[in-house]
Amino acid sequence: MSFALPHRGWLFDLDGTVYRGEALIPGADEAIAALRAAGRRVAFLSNKPLQTRVDYARKLTRLGIPTGEDDVINSSLVLARYLARLDARAPVFVIGEPPLIAELRAHGFEVRGDHRVRWVVIAFDRTFDYAKLNTALQAVRQGARLIATNPDRTCPTEDGEIPDCAGMTAAVEAVTGHTVEIIVGKPSPIILEVALERLGLEARECAIVGDRLETDIVMGKRLGLATVLVLTGITPAGDARIADSAPDLVVPSIRELLTS
Amino acid sequence: MSFALPHRGWLFDLDGTVYRGEALIPGADEAIAALRAAGRRVAFLSNKPLQTRVDYARKLTRLGIPTGEDDVINSSLVLARYLARLDARAPVFVIGEPPLIAELRAHGFEVRGDHRVRWVVIAFDRTFDYAKLNTALQAVRQGARLIATNPDRTCPTEDGEIPDCAGMTAAVEAVTGHTVEIIVGKPSPIILEVALERLGLEARECAIVGDRLETDIVMGKRLGLATVLVLTGITPAGDARIADSAPDLVVPSIRELLTS
Repeated sequence: MSFALPHRGWLFDLDGTVYRGEALIPGADEAIAALRAAGRRVAFLSNKPLQTRVDYARKLTRLGIPTGEDDVINSSLVLARYLARLDARAPVFVIGEPPLIAELRAHGFEVRGDHRVRWVVIAFDRTFDYAKLNTALQAVRQGARLIATNPDRTCPTEDGEIPDCAGMTAAVEAVTGHTVEIIVGKPSPIILEVALERLGLEARECAIVGDRLETDIVMGKRLGLATVLVLTGITPAGDARIADSAPDLVVPSIRELLTS
Repeated sequence: MSFALPHRGWLFDLDGTVYRGEALIPGADEAIAALRAAGRRVAFLSNKPLQTRVDYARKLTRLGIPTGEDDVINSSLVLARYLARLDARAPVFVIGEPPLIAELRAHGFEVRGDHRVRWVVIAFDRTFDYAKLNTALQAVRQGARLIATNPDRTCPTEDGEIPDCAGMTAAVEAVTGHTVEIIVGKPSPIILEVALERLGLEARECAIVGDRLETDIVMGKRLGLATVLVLTGITPAGDARIADSAPDLVVPSIRELLTS
């Protein structure tokens, strides 16, 4: 068994790379099992704050890729860790769903329902509404700062694309007149640094595999990882932007990481 | 009785100019009664789509300024009229409150709850939520166009500022990647043209009185009306931007339009 690239560490995007919705991308289980069997270190990266890391680990395990929660790095975890270093135990207001709130609480933050906070945390939130937007405005008027999980405009689902974090972020920025200071998710280096720390490797020892040029590939190149674009997700084979982004490798799917 | 300016037509902003919340600005009733008694024509302009024109007329009447609904021009009316000329009876999805929906129905539009529409109408909407944002996204993906009532970032209330239409607009623009094509409210010339039509006068024969430099004053100057800034609303006396905007007249309040 040999691999398309010799790197010791492998970071995989999830949706569009390892699975699509509830369906495993054919061969993903074998490719990852082979990497692990060869002593390569593997972790999974997601910008989605809608599930807990345990949820992702269970889903991967169910789909045939046995995984523990520590091997999953999502934007909720990264935001909670980053903010804990910046302003430990701060009171926060969250535009987000219960898994993000749970992660923040687990990191010691006081999650409040009113505007008496030091931070407004903005995330992909299917329960976003006017009342939350108003609380965010009142918080910022009292001096609260803005941090967001991820910059994605939309999120692909089995029923098509739905609004992602950029919608909530834009609404808050428009009414407050303030720009979000920190976005921790891809393509921010912040999420990648957490992932490299988890692998215990340097950037040059690692490859990142993903389906999005503007996040996975851009971020990987910026930090000096090898980059692999798969065509099983958002980016179609003929996309003119592939040449500009210049990933180190373009493969039809994760299966082709195994070269024999 | 004489007036600060000789113009035949007078357009008044409402909140911050004629009243603040439920309280009449002292002397507003006398000033407007005097203008009317002297044969000047008066109409009222509001960017707010939260009430019907009848609601505004009743409120003015209750506060001592007897007014019929035809003398009230708000962004709901202007949007419905403008869109009726552009795409009569089109199916529309509305991010907005019941008075706007009623105005659109009264103008012959088919207001739908799903994404099978030709237009997404965006307004100040205290019932805005993720489901509406998603319907707007799906509509735009099927080719729907975007039109909005007003560009305001926030709306002043007795309890402070709350998020206005710019929040909803920014969210829709961010997730769709499309820009709103038309905003009918102040400072758009569209609302002013409807108002001048109502007065039956040319721009140069009219004065506009308001408390906001970036809407009332900017728009009035752009179209050639005389402009009067009152200091009873959002703009404080010492505001450095007053000199740049250069209204024809700055008065402490509407009361000072009467000069004897």
